[in-house]
Amino acid sequence: MNKPNTQNTNKKNMEAVTPKSEDISRWYTDVVLKARMADYSPVKGCMIIRPYGYALWENIQRILDAEFKKLGHQNAYFPMFIPESFLTKEAEHVEGFAPEVAWVTHGGREELEERLAIRPTSEAIIGHMYSKWIESYRDLPVLINQWANVVRWEKVTRPFLRTTEFLWQEGHTAHRTHEEAQEEVMQMLGVYRKFVEGSLAIPLVTGEKSQKEKFAGALNTYTIEALMPDGQALQSGTSHDLGQNFSKAFDIRFLDSDGDRKYAWTTSWGMSTRIIGATIMVHGDDRGLRLPPKVAPIQAVVIPIVYKDSQDVIIKARELMKRLAASDIRVHLDDRGGFKPGWKYSEYEMMGVPLRVEIGQKDLEKNQVCLVRRDTGEKMFIPDAELEATVLRLMEEIQQTLFDQAAEILKNKTVRALSFEEFTAAIREKQSMADLCWCGEAECEAKFKAEAGATIRCFNDGQVDTPCVVCGKPAQKRVFVARAY
Amino acid sequence: MNKPNTQNTNKKNMEAVTPKSEDISRWYTDVVLKARMADYSPVKGCMIIRPYGYALWENIQRILDAEFKKLGHQNAYFPMFIPESFLTKEAEHVEGFAPEVAWVTHGGREELEERLAIRPTSEAIIGHMYSKWIESYRDLPVLINQWANVVRWEKVTRPFLRTTEFLWQEGHTAHRTHEEAQEEVMQMLGVYRKFVEGSLAIPLVTGEKSQKEKFAGALNTYTIEALMPDGQALQSGTSHDLGQNFSKAFDIRFLDSDGDRKYAWTTSWGMSTRIIGATIMVHGDDRGLRLPPKVAPIQAVVIPIVYKDSQDVIIKARELMKRLAASDIRVHLDDRGGFKPGWKYSEYEMMGVPLRVEIGQKDLEKNQVCLVRRDTGEKMFIPDAELEATVLRLMEEIQQTLFDQAAEILKNKTVRALSFEEFTAAIREKQSMADLCWCGEAECEAKFKAEAGATIRCFNDGQVDTPCVVCGKPAQKRVFVARAY
Repeated sequence: MNKPNTQNTNKKNMEAVTPKSEDISRWYTDVVLKARMADYSPVKGCMIIRPYGYALWENIQRILDAEFKKLGHQNAYFPMFIPESFLTKEAEHVEGFAPEVAWVTHGGREELEERLAIRPTSEAIIGHMYSKWIESYRDLPVLINQWANVVRWEKVTRPFLRTTEFLWQEGHTAHRTHEEAQEEVMQMLGVYRKFVEGSLAIPLVTGEKSQKEKFAGALNTYTIEALMPDGQALQSGTSHDLGQNFSKAFDIRFLDSDGDRKYAWTTSWGMSTRIIGATIMVHGDDRGLRLPPKVAPIQAVVIPIVYKDSQDVIIKARELMKRLAASDIRVHLDDRGGFKPGWKYSEYEMMGVPLRVEIGQKDLEKNQVCLVRRDTGEKMFIPDAELEATVLRLMEEIQQTLFDQAAEILKNKTVRALSFEEFTAAIREKQSMADLCWCGEAECEAKFKAEAGATIRCFNDGQVDTPCVVCGKPAQKRVFVARAY
Repeated sequence: MNKPNTQNTNKKNMEAVTPKSEDISRWYTDVVLKARMADYSPVKGCMIIRPYGYALWENIQRILDAEFKKLGHQNAYFPMFIPESFLTKEAEHVEGFAPEVAWVTHGGREELEERLAIRPTSEAIIGHMYSKWIESYRDLPVLINQWANVVRWEKVTRPFLRTTEFLWQEGHTAHRTHEEAQEEVMQMLGVYRKFVEGSLAIPLVTGEKSQKEKFAGALNTYTIEALMPDGQALQSGTSHDLGQNFSKAFDIRFLDSDGDRKYAWTTSWGMSTRIIGATIMVHGDDRGLRLPPKVAPIQAVVIPIVYKDSQDVIIKARELMKRLAASDIRVHLDDRGGFKPGWKYSEYEMMGVPLRVEIGQKDLEKNQVCLVRRDTGEKMFIPDAELEATVLRLMEEIQQTLFDQAAEILKNKTVRALSFEEFTAAIREKQSMADLCWCGEAECEAKFKAEAGATIRCFNDGQVDTPCVVCGKPAQKRVFVARAY
């Protein structure tokens, strides 16, 4: 059987993308399609995650899943159907999600007695099961995660960033005390932060959401927010302190050691395929994707430059590939005939492969290898014997460079606003995120939206050193305000 | 934060199960619930896969996924919504699946223009995408797999064995020639057989399905069938030669090297969480599960036998646990206080943990460890220094014993039938699978069902050495016939 052909054979596909600086929206769509990360489906708002995009998701899953398990979480699977009556048990929850729910009304040829929601999130069904499973304080904590598809009916969609169906993980835990639940909430926020900054090379701002922006049904929501190059924030992961809201709605009680029957304290936390959209948006350039080495499906591609069908170069290329694979580099050899090296270079640049390894007749003679970095475009010739060590070092360097470049953007696009005028200028003219003081009132919060289409992304730790930029009264919180995806 | 409590603290839960020989159906349900493999959901026919059951599924996924990838397959993700008009494009396909489809009719607060099927299988949506992606013979083969949930509306359900929503993998491939597609079909059947026999220790019969029993829309279906102790067969994985049926329905064409535009040849193949039901059913006994070591979430449990709070034994138990973990044994230490050793023994027997490692004061003094096999109940004392080597050896032995015991049942319950009377006796009186000759006519095939509730499970390689047991005319096929789950 032949090897699968997972690459592009369609040359017209490789035409230039819209420049990122010209139209970031069109650039994004161009890159997602041309790098074969995803494709549109015949059902509006749904996407196909193609093998190259899914391989990135598998790398994300592998790293996160290991972190979750290290902290004692176990995976499980809950049904995607939630009876309508369950969804309505927690009042805020149903109000928040009802407008986005897809409903199943028929099974086979029969109409259902009660219509079923396709899970937009699983607090309701999991809360119901926890009420059956938890009897004693000895059953606590319950630390469960699931990897699943969820559906939220969206009007305006974009591959990865906002789709009707998406993939995610959702952790759901139950604890004996509020303190322990809060510890879990902050611990998982930390896991997300470490993963996104460390593995995806995306710098973040993190903190508590305002009551208006919290998860429907939560006491408090904590978020990690990434800033896109157009100054819009992208909520990239959330961790919710659900208090006793869901345990009261679903009767999750346990017999404590003091003989009292008490409501458990629950949390939930989730991260989705949306994070792939953030990775594309933050790091990509006019040549296509630039993927962080820690999650890149292909970390290095070896391309032999063959003249007159000489086999020496191909044999050497295979050797380089094997040596890199033996050093645990995710390496791919592209020795296809019928494609010029330059065409291949463009293809792997589009796919965001961090490092290109070129080998030609001259390199063979000089006992050298040519390396080209995707992040900087830098080209270097190194002695053959130094290949593995150099590639391993470059993986670290490229990861760091991508982070540093994104951190520079975050820094430049976070603008301290001391007045409402400075706030609107930050959002509208500077396409930035504003860092400002706020009195805590919903009325003032509403003005961010009304005047600049922006929302409070999260509270921040900075000093509360000015009055509220909206009303001028004493401020309670220092907050990040931005438009959002 | 405390360690999660994933075990039973509810003593009444551990009451004896219904004996397997007395009522295998009740035994099955008792064991699934008491071993915490799964639980019932509030939505009829759906199940919750609990952490212990899901850990088994993760082990199954890990082994199968690696096999698929070794053979060049890549994972992807396709939407679970399929427009009704797509499902109807392949005539046999829609006829086969329409009675089992769950329909989404509303998104958010609006009624949809066209209702959406929740995938019962994904040939339709994947066929549509392949028609977009495949242009040239150079794009072939396409070798894609997806891990996903699917829904088939069932009237009578049982955890794992038959549920409305279940998890599975579905491979979908497209090829240049029929020969290559057929090679893929047989290759994947071989992967399934090797996995189920080798890792799940379940012996199989395998072969082609009759036209009546094939997948709706396929040219031919090949199956692996396991035999349950009650003589009923369980279809455990299927591999379909779809011919050009779907490529014609969805216009999957490629430009061949001769300049002709040709229809591709496609295949699909799937295995689901149903295989967990087979594993429980085949190996379990009156004490609970007996899990094959290769997939058991816990391969060995270490239980310290502590008198008067002596710490020596607990310290030693921890050492044994660490040594086994270092030898890549999936080991669990149960050092919980407040539970008698005998109670713990019953619990891990229920969970089917292949090996129990006991350590008490006397063992410490004698520098020995006590091992108890779950499969045979055999108890042995071994020198401390031989722990790792012995446990590794026993994993192999237990795996083999489970296979051998199941193979003995398959052998005893496969009855050669030379006449229709012998066939009905095999099914009804001997609760067995019949091995017989058949003329190939649908009318005779229908009699297996009408007279004994049985169906042709698959063709077999045995000699066609008698007339058809139904009509007495010359036989065409030697077949296995049985009732089925």
